[in-house]
Amino acid sequence: MLVVMRNDATDEDIAAVVSAIEKIGHKAETIPGKNRSVVGIVGNDGSVDGAPFEGMEGVKEVVPITSPFKLVSREWNPTDTLVRVSDDVVFGGNAIQIIAGPCSVESEEQIMETARAVSAAGATVLRGGAYKPRSSPYSFQGLGVEGLKLLAQAREETGLKIISEAIDPESVDEVAEYADIIQIGSRNMHNFSLLKKAGRSRVPIMLKRGMASTITELLLSAEYLLAEGNNQVILCERGVRGFDSTTRNVFDLAAIPVIKRLSHLPVVADPSHGTGVRDLVRPMSRAAIAAGADGVMIEVHPNPSAALSDGAQSLYVSDLNSLVGEMKQVAAAIEREIAPQVVETGRT
Amino acid sequence: MLVVMRNDATDEDIAAVVSAIEKIGHKAETIPGKNRSVVGIVGNDGSVDGAPFEGMEGVKEVVPITSPFKLVSREWNPTDTLVRVSDDVVFGGNAIQIIAGPCSVESEEQIMETARAVSAAGATVLRGGAYKPRSSPYSFQGLGVEGLKLLAQAREETGLKIISEAIDPESVDEVAEYADIIQIGSRNMHNFSLLKKAGRSRVPIMLKRGMASTITELLLSAEYLLAEGNNQVILCERGVRGFDSTTRNVFDLAAIPVIKRLSHLPVVADPSHGTGVRDLVRPMSRAAIAAGADGVMIEVHPNPSAALSDGAQSLYVSDLNSLVGEMKQVAAAIEREIAPQVVETGRT
Amino acid sequence: MLVVMRNDATDEDIAAVVSAIEKIGHKAETIPGKNRSVVGIVGNDGSVDGAPFEGMEGVKEVVPITSPFKLVSREWNPTDTLVRVSDDVVFGGNAIQIIAGPCSVESEEQIMETARAVSAAGATVLRGGAYKPRSSPYSFQGLGVEGLKLLAQAREETGLKIISEAIDPESVDEVAEYADIIQIGSRNMHNFSLLKKAGRSRVPIMLKRGMASTITELLLSAEYLLAEGNNQVILCERGVRGFDSTTRNVFDLAAIPVIKRLSHLPVVADPSHGTGVRDLVRPMSRAAIAAGADGVMIEVHPNPSAALSDGAQSLYVSDLNSLVGEMKQVAAAIEREIAPQVVETGRT
Amino acid sequence: MLVVMRNDATDEDIAAVVSAIEKIGHKAETIPGKNRSVVGIVGNDGSVDGAPFEGMEGVKEVVPITSPFKLVSREWNPTDTLVRVSDDVVFGGNAIQIIAGPCSVESEEQIMETARAVSAAGATVLRGGAYKPRSSPYSFQGLGVEGLKLLAQAREETGLKIISEAIDPESVDEVAEYADIIQIGSRNMHNFSLLKKAGRSRVPIMLKRGMASTITELLLSAEYLLAEGNNQVILCERGVRGFDSTTRNVFDLAAIPVIKRLSHLPVVADPSHGTGVRDLVRPMSRAAIAAGADGVMIEVHPNPSAALSDGAQSLYVSDLNSLVGEMKQVAAAIEREIAPQVVETGRT
Repeated sequence: MLVVMRNDATDEDIAAVVSAIEKIGHKAETIPGKNRSVVGIVGNDGSVDGAPFEGMEGVKEVVPITSPFKLVSREWNPTDTLVRVSDDVVFGGNAIQIIAGPCSVESEEQIMETARAVSAAGATVLRGGAYKPRSSPYSFQGLGVEGLKLLAQAREETGLKIISEAIDPESVDEVAEYADIIQIGSRNMHNFSLLKKAGRSRVPIMLKRGMASTITELLLSAEYLLAEGNNQVILCERGVRGFDSTTRNVFDLAAIPVIKRLSHLPVVADPSHGTGVRDLVRPMSRAAIAAGADGVMIEVHPNPSAALSDGAQSLYVSDLNSLVGEMKQVAAAIEREIAPQVVETGRT
Repeated sequence: MLVVMRNDATDEDIAAVVSAIEKIGHKAETIPGKNRSVVGIVGNDGSVDGAPFEGMEGVKEVVPITSPFKLVSREWNPTDTLVRVSDDVVFGGNAIQIIAGPCSVESEEQIMETARAVSAAGATVLRGGAYKPRSSPYSFQGLGVEGLKLLAQAREETGLKIISEAIDPESVDEVAEYADIIQIGSRNMHNFSLLKKAGRSRVPIMLKRGMASTITELLLSAEYLLAEGNNQVILCERGVRGFDSTTRNVFDLAAIPVIKRLSHLPVVADPSHGTGVRDLVRPMSRAAIAAGADGVMIEVHPNPSAALSDGAQSLYVSDLNSLVGEMKQVAAAIEREIAPQVVETGRT
Repeated sequence: MLVVMRNDATDEDIAAVVSAIEKIGHKAETIPGKNRSVVGIVGNDGSVDGAPFEGMEGVKEVVPITSPFKLVSREWNPTDTLVRVSDDVVFGGNAIQIIAGPCSVESEEQIMETARAVSAAGATVLRGGAYKPRSSPYSFQGLGVEGLKLLAQAREETGLKIISEAIDPESVDEVAEYADIIQIGSRNMHNFSLLKKAGRSRVPIMLKRGMASTITELLLSAEYLLAEGNNQVILCERGVRGFDSTTRNVFDLAAIPVIKRLSHLPVVADPSHGTGVRDLVRPMSRAAIAAGADGVMIEVHPNPSAALSDGAQSLYVSDLNSLVGEMKQVAAAIEREIAPQVVETGRT
Repeated sequence: MLVVMRNDATDEDIAAVVSAIEKIGHKAETIPGKNRSVVGIVGNDGSVDGAPFEGMEGVKEVVPITSPFKLVSREWNPTDTLVRVSDDVVFGGNAIQIIAGPCSVESEEQIMETARAVSAAGATVLRGGAYKPRSSPYSFQGLGVEGLKLLAQAREETGLKIISEAIDPESVDEVAEYADIIQIGSRNMHNFSLLKKAGRSRVPIMLKRGMASTITELLLSAEYLLAEGNNQVILCERGVRGFDSTTRNVFDLAAIPVIKRLSHLPVVADPSHGTGVRDLVRPMSRAAIAAGADGVMIEVHPNPSAALSDGAQSLYVSDLNSLVGEMKQVAAAIEREIAPQVVETGRT
């Protein structure tokens, strides 16, 4: 950590910073400058909170040098973490997992029809929201536990693993009871009570990037999960807020290789939310794989015209087959593969 | 609501949209264009969810014409809502309330010293975080219920009303037991479980704008509170995420008059988080009042150099006196006034 | 175009809008609503400027329905435009062109060494800035015409086509004299005098997206070029400004398929500026091809440690070989190909 | 300047950075860290370009400590610069100047009527675009030199000073011939050829912040003007691009006190472009003054319903009178004043 002093800082100001560093047990080194001085902490371990220094007299800014996260960092664990949803469905290895399904579970017919179709197309995980965080209180809020039961029924029949979202500490146990992966959505990336509760479960978690979160903030939220003991964490890039309404979000694919450098955790891309436009899902799914994603999550609906949410970005089930074919080609081009279809049934 | 068709939409596509509108009980009117057609819903009441139309064949986009929020809108209630924290402390009338205090409650000495000082300077409400949502699990997370008790003690002595943040559904009851206003912070603006729980309490709520939320999204989150029966809601502009790291956020003061036009709820400005820089709090507090804020929330610490959080943006208690003097002048210039110091003690 | 009226608009306000539409020779149709009315222009051709309507009494907003651009649109010309730099180097067909070279031309040795290396690796076009737009007046501003001459010398020896930036109307003629493609950079996307001048040249142009420009604005700037008679225009996505300083820009790869749907012009991706980080150029070059780019522009320097600009994002020449190999695989996966190395010499 | 090394940087990498610093004549000091080292330049004067270091092996990032600008900085010149348009119209002193007028000069009648009205209301400078940079080639592009002559005619009659925009190096001389202040617009903040040309004129310049420019970039563009010898420079905050389309831009009023701390140049606010909404101009004009602006620029049109551009954000001339009254009150509240009406005629 470097404490950059203002150009009008006094010697007393500098001495006070040095003293504050020493008081918390670290060694300080001062670099005098013509215009301003800088005080560095020598040999620190990343756990120093810079906030208290920012308020000190004469301080211009505090520049963190060591990453603020620890357990999620590649420096802490240089080996890629494998998130084992089952023996066959593993995130973070050479095989790329395809997660597909509707935005929301709407009915038995809808979820069963979708599950059969995405399984046939090559997906290994079925997505479907049972609890839906919606901007408006008047929008469809999900079927709740009934939705989770329908997902479990789809798993029984198809062998697909299932992922569904927990939206508060209360729903974590319920989602953990039925789903194979607990999703924590963008709007909840900074819901620390939810993160702590999910971190204490032993079910794999997919943590989506907040809609205006930096990569550092995403990794810090993942740190909450690992700090509670759950290291089976998949990160997800799903687009960030931008100024151009042509697409729903700016799909920040460069975040994928950035995260892979900073962290050992697997990363999945969500081109459906990342773009919000059905016709863009195909090219951006291919691009996500080329960028290094360990999985792709795609919204698919048997009848997008009648979807209760996200119809504009949902693929027809018939589209998924040809898209998976293209994704296999791109995966092969970078010496990876799309994970083979799961055949066993039931939950591990 | 207008459904804009793509230029390659077929007559069947248009007929399907018309039929879907009629199926939900509304009347559709089609405007044929040279390049593309538009289908409008005639005489709707704002409750139509545009999402299902977005996924229909041939649809380019859905343009909402009526606001998606209702109870919070000025069209619903043209009269300014008064949020009565007590007989003396009312948000939304001619008097502008000053909320001041530390980011976090850290100790009895710190909060009592600050409370006396901000009361003497003219604040009517004492702020102080007991539960702190922090990006890093390794940062100070607040004193919890002990912090709430210290705030209540400060209220006893000074007569200041108190505001503190609830960070999950669980903490709502606890904060409601001690505080006069429950704060819902930026990171939780989309925490709908928390919103629903707070909406069922009968304590006034201050809802802060999310760090990348549109004004419409802020009003929709407030709609959750009113829909649950709590209309004692104060909104707060606290800056949004931007691309220039010179300030911590972009302090979007124009949001204040925008919200006042769209909604009947009072609006407070938070220049401390809005800028993140101590020296900017003074001019931006004045500007917030000139822009029409019903209150200003300012971080003050007896010793910013030793603050456990947000020291860089905290005023010295000695600064507050002269700042309040300036705010009084600006309030008078627009024919408003800074609310007088509270003199009675205890909670209403 | 739809003119959405405020809910308090009077019948006179609506009549005035109808009258204004009729005055400019169009037919107006009014859709009455319960809360607000909408006036549409029936059968217009996209050339109606909505601006004058925005200032009328009672108008809430003007919603453009037809695209504001014309000559660049796919509706105007459904066939992909081929930009023919030479018989061998064509942008917009099945072959993907690789443009490589240093940010700035610095010396004969540097540009010749780079040209030989990138030619050997498989690039078909050599990039190199002679006029450099720099944020600071104290940064290196380029070699000017000397730089252009060095580029031409590199073309003589290697057969590579060359691209270099014109930064004002004056430099257009000079760049056009030496280069095969005139680049208009991000900072000049809204420099309309430069656009008009370049549009009157007969040399192909690469127009880069402004650092905070919408796709519509990019296409409107291209419209200036086509409106002046030059339809040999290549567009370039190079990242837009974002809130996360981890990468230099947010590389908006979804812009590529968006542009391909809206326009017939070819699109190139610039992962070097798009990310600003050397290690990200490889995965994002692959991703750009998977997303549908017609070319990739990559900064390469024989000695990035000594580059006068953009060293952090420049590849070593040795890196380019293996990257081109990977790009060939990805191109093949989507049934395209990397354009073969040029063998003839001299300018066409 | 601090060069932060990656945690896997070798001793050779560090030695190479030290050597590169010494090679350009500076002294390097290394702070060893447990995880990574930092190399600082001791006693530099701000003129070191960090770019070449960013490309060196083992370098994580380069942190500038000294500001990259010099002549515009308050460290260089601690005294507020006064920009003297005439003896009576001075920007940067205690008096706040009001600039008002239409977006574009459209006709003799329009500009004369507006000039008389804004003069009567208390403005000291008349704005009006003769050359208009427009996103679309099909939008009204201004009257050119005829517009400048009409502005000069308005000055003759009213005594108002006039400001108009130069959009390329060619138009600088023409604008300089007629106008009292040359405006450089947002879209041209990075048009360095234009900046250099304007910097060589001796007419005061108003430089508007680019639509997605940082404050540092704005000051660097101003540095181009001062470096060419023109220190009569007024800066202008006019809103930056944001994600919420409720307002045209995010009006970043905190930029005003930030700039006043960093630079000695006067700063003007443009609430018309900053918000894009007529009803917001009033509260945000007051707020701009409270935030410390040295002037306010307001779009006024005799008949906004018929304006060829920016009608939605233009005030009626009748509105300006009462707004000036309010601005006087706010100015008095912070011990400043609105500059008195000019009475003499003709150009100084």
